Amino acid sequence: MSTADTADTGSAVVLDGTGLARSIRERVAAGAAELIGVGVAPRLAVVVATDDEGAGWYVRSLSGAARRVGIACDVVELGADADPETIRHTLLRLSGDDTVHGIILQTPLPDGVRVEDLAADIAAEKDVDGANPLSAGRLAAGLPAYPPATAAAVLDLLDHHGIALAGRSAVVVGRSLVVGKPTAQLLLQRDATVSICHRHTKDLAQHTREADVLVVAVGRIGLVRAEHVAPGAIVVDVGTNTAPDGSLAGDVDGGVAAVAGGLTPVPGGVGPVTTALLLEHTVRSARSHG
Amino acid sequence: MSTADTADTGSAVVLDGTGLARSIRERVAAGAAELIGVGVAPRLAVVVATDDEGAGWYVRSLSGAARRVGIACDVVELGADADPETIRHTLLRLSGDDTVHGIILQTPLPDGVRVEDLAADIAAEKDVDGANPLSAGRLAAGLPAYPPATAAAVLDLLDHHGIALAGRSAVVVGRSLVVGKPTAQLLLQRDATVSICHRHTKDLAQHTREADVLVVAVGRIGLVRAEHVAPGAIVVDVGTNTAPDGSLAGDVDGGVAAVAGGLTPVPGGVGPVTTALLLEHTVRSARSHG
Repeated sequence: MSTADTADTGSAVVLDGTGLARSIRERVAAGAAELIGVGVAPRLAVVVATDDEGAGWYVRSLSGAARRVGIACDVVELGADADPETIRHTLLRLSGDDTVHGIILQTPLPDGVRVEDLAADIAAEKDVDGANPLSAGRLAAGLPAYPPATAAAVLDLLDHHGIALAGRSAVVVGRSLVVGKPTAQLLLQRDATVSICHRHTKDLAQHTREADVLVVAVGRIGLVRAEHVAPGAIVVDVGTNTAPDGSLAGDVDGGVAAVAGGLTPVPGGVGPVTTALLLEHTVRSARSHG
Repeated sequence: MSTADTADTGSAVVLDGTGLARSIRERVAAGAAELIGVGVAPRLAVVVATDDEGAGWYVRSLSGAARRVGIACDVVELGADADPETIRHTLLRLSGDDTVHGIILQTPLPDGVRVEDLAADIAAEKDVDGANPLSAGRLAAGLPAYPPATAAAVLDLLDHHGIALAGRSAVVVGRSLVVGKPTAQLLLQRDATVSICHRHTKDLAQHTREADVLVVAVGRIGLVRAEHVAPGAIVVDVGTNTAPDGSLAGDVDGGVAAVAGGLTPVPGGVGPVTTALLLEHTVRSARSHG
């Protein structure tokens, strides 16, 4: 279990994401500066059709992070009552705009509008958050594609902390299109034996206790508790829930730290790495197509 | 465990595929006749760039089956030394041909040519064997798409024999793009808890013995034996291997029948249903786009 072996004493190693995020941002800033030097200004466009507070906070944070590494960030506000055709038209326009290198369709979307129906209109080479079904298919086929940044962040965090995956049992709780399914794909590519649990899973604890590496991405505070985790297991908490006191809380209960070998914190785990990877994908796209 | 419950006596119920295949073919023949009546002749094109004997046998069998249900089948022989550009050009031509409703790119392909690199040139609405990465992505997103026929056949066989899936543990052995991965997607859509095992899985038997439903798609004779199977489990054998005596053999050892609750035979299980579904997808495509 490499670096996390030290944690079998009963108190989980904190698998911090802020240091990794910082080093990714430094690399991105250097890459952006290089591009700007040759006349290509990396640019990310975020299409927003919601007045959800959490989404607003996230978009401001992302656009600030982009600016700080030298990536221009256009927030395209369409309003919470935008119709699908307006969103589609905007995505097509940005896809055809040579000055835009990355496109993100922010969720939530207006009622009845599904991201998977619209994301096909994000040009695959600008689909830096892997939302286009073509990106998902290329990912499954092992062809070049941007994976959803959150899924990529889970893998990068595990790698950064030296967690081996080949031949080990990885269990993903949650089967969303943006996290659970692509994370399972990436773990499978890395030769883990992968199980996917969800709301219909009977006896969740029985399944999760088999995990050497447990990834929890459901969106429910405290869903995974100590009794769900095998001693020494590595636990990645993808949850970003708002606790009753307004603070950010993951899906994993604090008691898990006493059992797990390693645990990603919330905040400061998967979140900052996700943001940094969105920026990295944008610079990569600018380098390839700028 | 519905109809298969009767099998807990120690001798597995044979989960036959030939009856199901026949009823699908009857439905397809009726559909094809209806289309022909309104002036649309359903047509399947199979692109072949191999002189592999097994592939040749399969293509002849498929084209015979197509003709018998009233579907025209064009076998486009490009030769075992066809270059990727020739194959690509052929797929694009067929994709643009309004008289063709289904396109299959037969494997194996010439050395160094990968189906996932070429299948993107099969028009998605004619991709009756779900080979285009866009089809895989749409499948994962829950959007309309043709799944690979073999994966669809596994699910249809389970449904036909009344095997419940929601909340149950399904284990897929094999992670190929054409069977393992899409079968896992389909089982997940049906609310099974899904695990995917492969050559790197440590202690395969430990994982497979957790399965209520075990799908084996590796391509190795006798890979799964009695000790891999929980008493009463349902076992689907997707293997189609040539035994030393020239006969067709699955991946599942005969001894499994003494333990499993139900077992698909080889031949006569998944195979005929797969062929029937390719024909059904072709008629569906002709109905939508003919």
